[in-house]
Amino acid sequence: MTSPDGSILVSMRDDINLALSDFVKTGSQYLSNIGVELKPVATEIEKFLLDSGKRLRPLFAYAGLLSTGKKPTPQMIKAVASLELIHVCALIHDDVMDNSDTRRGAPSIHKIFEAIHNQQKLSGSASQFGSASAILMGDLALVWSAQMLHTSGISDQELIGVLPFYDEMRVELMAGQYLDVFEQSLATQSIERSMKVARFKSGKYTIERPLHFGVALGNGSTDLLKAFTDYGIPLGEAFQLRDDILGIFGNPKETGKPAGDDLREGKRTALIAATFDKANKSQLEVLDQYFGDPNLSDVQISLLQEIIVETGALSHIESMIKQLAETSLNALAYEAISLEGKRLLQELAQLATNRKI
Amino acid sequence: MTSPDGSILVSMRDDINLALSDFVKTGSQYLSNIGVELKPVATEIEKFLLDSGKRLRPLFAYAGLLSTGKKPTPQMIKAVASLELIHVCALIHDDVMDNSDTRRGAPSIHKIFEAIHNQQKLSGSASQFGSASAILMGDLALVWSAQMLHTSGISDQELIGVLPFYDEMRVELMAGQYLDVFEQSLATQSIERSMKVARFKSGKYTIERPLHFGVALGNGSTDLLKAFTDYGIPLGEAFQLRDDILGIFGNPKETGKPAGDDLREGKRTALIAATFDKANKSQLEVLDQYFGDPNLSDVQISLLQEIIVETGALSHIESMIKQLAETSLNALAYEAISLEGKRLLQELAQLATNRKI
Repeated sequence: MTSPDGSILVSMRDDINLALSDFVKTGSQYLSNIGVELKPVATEIEKFLLDSGKRLRPLFAYAGLLSTGKKPTPQMIKAVASLELIHVCALIHDDVMDNSDTRRGAPSIHKIFEAIHNQQKLSGSASQFGSASAILMGDLALVWSAQMLHTSGISDQELIGVLPFYDEMRVELMAGQYLDVFEQSLATQSIERSMKVARFKSGKYTIERPLHFGVALGNGSTDLLKAFTDYGIPLGEAFQLRDDILGIFGNPKETGKPAGDDLREGKRTALIAATFDKANKSQLEVLDQYFGDPNLSDVQISLLQEIIVETGALSHIESMIKQLAETSLNALAYEAISLEGKRLLQELAQLATNRKI
Repeated sequence: MTSPDGSILVSMRDDINLALSDFVKTGSQYLSNIGVELKPVATEIEKFLLDSGKRLRPLFAYAGLLSTGKKPTPQMIKAVASLELIHVCALIHDDVMDNSDTRRGAPSIHKIFEAIHNQQKLSGSASQFGSASAILMGDLALVWSAQMLHTSGISDQELIGVLPFYDEMRVELMAGQYLDVFEQSLATQSIERSMKVARFKSGKYTIERPLHFGVALGNGSTDLLKAFTDYGIPLGEAFQLRDDILGIFGNPKETGKPAGDDLREGKRTALIAATFDKANKSQLEVLDQYFGDPNLSDVQISLLQEIIVETGALSHIESMIKQLAETSLNALAYEAISLEGKRLLQELAQLATNRKI
């Protein structure tokens, strides 16, 4: 059995990080030439981008490319790495939208710029300055992604080939994010609706479209695109379900988020929908009282966690993850997928569904 | 003398609007197919985009294209029209960043979605839902711009040719916006710094880069690019100075903004910097007391307006506009510019510097 973070993934991630680091250095220099005022913008995007991150979208694109049988060139690695900057935009904007103070255990971008405003004793509202800076930096990351792709050095034909998938990926991200924001504003839970959000936010944006991007880059067949829809959609749903479990049961030291964070936030996920579905009257009373209370104590968090386990909701979602992962892996039987691609996609499926962060 | 809104501009604007309307219809349909929840997103972007707008960036790109002597195809018109969607992103995000309730006399996007939250009695904070929706819709507009460009039907070679200018335009927009946000947070005014913001926000983003985009689309010469830097940068600065004057002296019926809006907001512009520079002691006392007070009465607004006139700041800025416009028009002497392009660029220079909205 391959390790969920086997050496091939590590070396691919190193390649991706190197390409990102190179690009951001040039981008930062460009900004600094415009004005010294932009120095913190460049520095903080660079830190945010390079400090951590699983690089899932570039890795799936890389896997899609390898599956075509093509040997990736350094230019192609730059092209797949550019997808990470879309994700930087999504995370920075997400934190502004959710008003989240931390990201991966460190202050979120808008909090960093709020602090800069305070330190430099600037005039006006520090929190408004923080949000405005973060909105612009998310926009910049989105534009940088495109610029990194366009200047990656892949051939004109390769670039023209990937653009439709690149665009669909970005439209589906924004659509999925809106579906999620809207879902969070509803007063009821629904597994079905949560799975639809998962399909767009994770199935398509995180897995299917990056794979398609890689296939297009390697000039792969329509068969391969079809195989990756069959592999990507269920795996993305499983990925999101794992995310939902980690948001409630994750170890704060590993996730970088406080324990039970999603319970305080009242995040409507498939796991929570299943819990409400399966709860008896007394459990329902506790859920109604505590779920979404921003001031929950650790004891109250434990109480809610117990209910999620006792109703059988947790094991229900775990078995859904298992089933979805199986469906996903079955799609790898397609003959069109190269052996190297197949092995990598098996590892990535493990990483996406069994991860702890 | 040509009218500032002569028939050629009107017919070009009609072409641009038609292309935008066609694209957004397809884009909206795509969103609606994802989910009925996305219907308001599509509807409101469409309304925001099609209700009004000067279409300056597409018009300058159109002019750049005509200047090469090329006859624009419907595909090329789609490509230049795509620049307007970048501007939609900038405006939607700007209103969130400034916390502005209105845009062109109507509620801003985040206020519209705040109202939707209230009407549908959704749960959670209506204002947070409004901001989150607007952030995502700005992101979507930015992505739609790229998708519209990529699917415009221009040749692969033409597309590859415009991408570097398209990217620089977007990076410079975000940089210029950040410079502006930062400038607004400083406790002092400076004409020099305000002109630098103007150079990026208007000179480059609104005029020079769209012109370059058009030149690249028409496969024009390096000489032409150079001519449009010389024409675009001063004209953009003049455009911004006119904007600053309109923000204080504009007719609310024409601008769609309350009279003296920028005075209440305390917006640091070159006009305000010049006023502080030239004010005597008693005028300075009034400025210090009232400038930036969100609750200014109409009488207090008039008092500040008088000071801006009496110090000579207004006439100083008006003469700067005149001089910048002249410098700009002188650059049209370049032989490389087609006669048709030249005529159009003269009209656009008038529109940008003498406008009332």
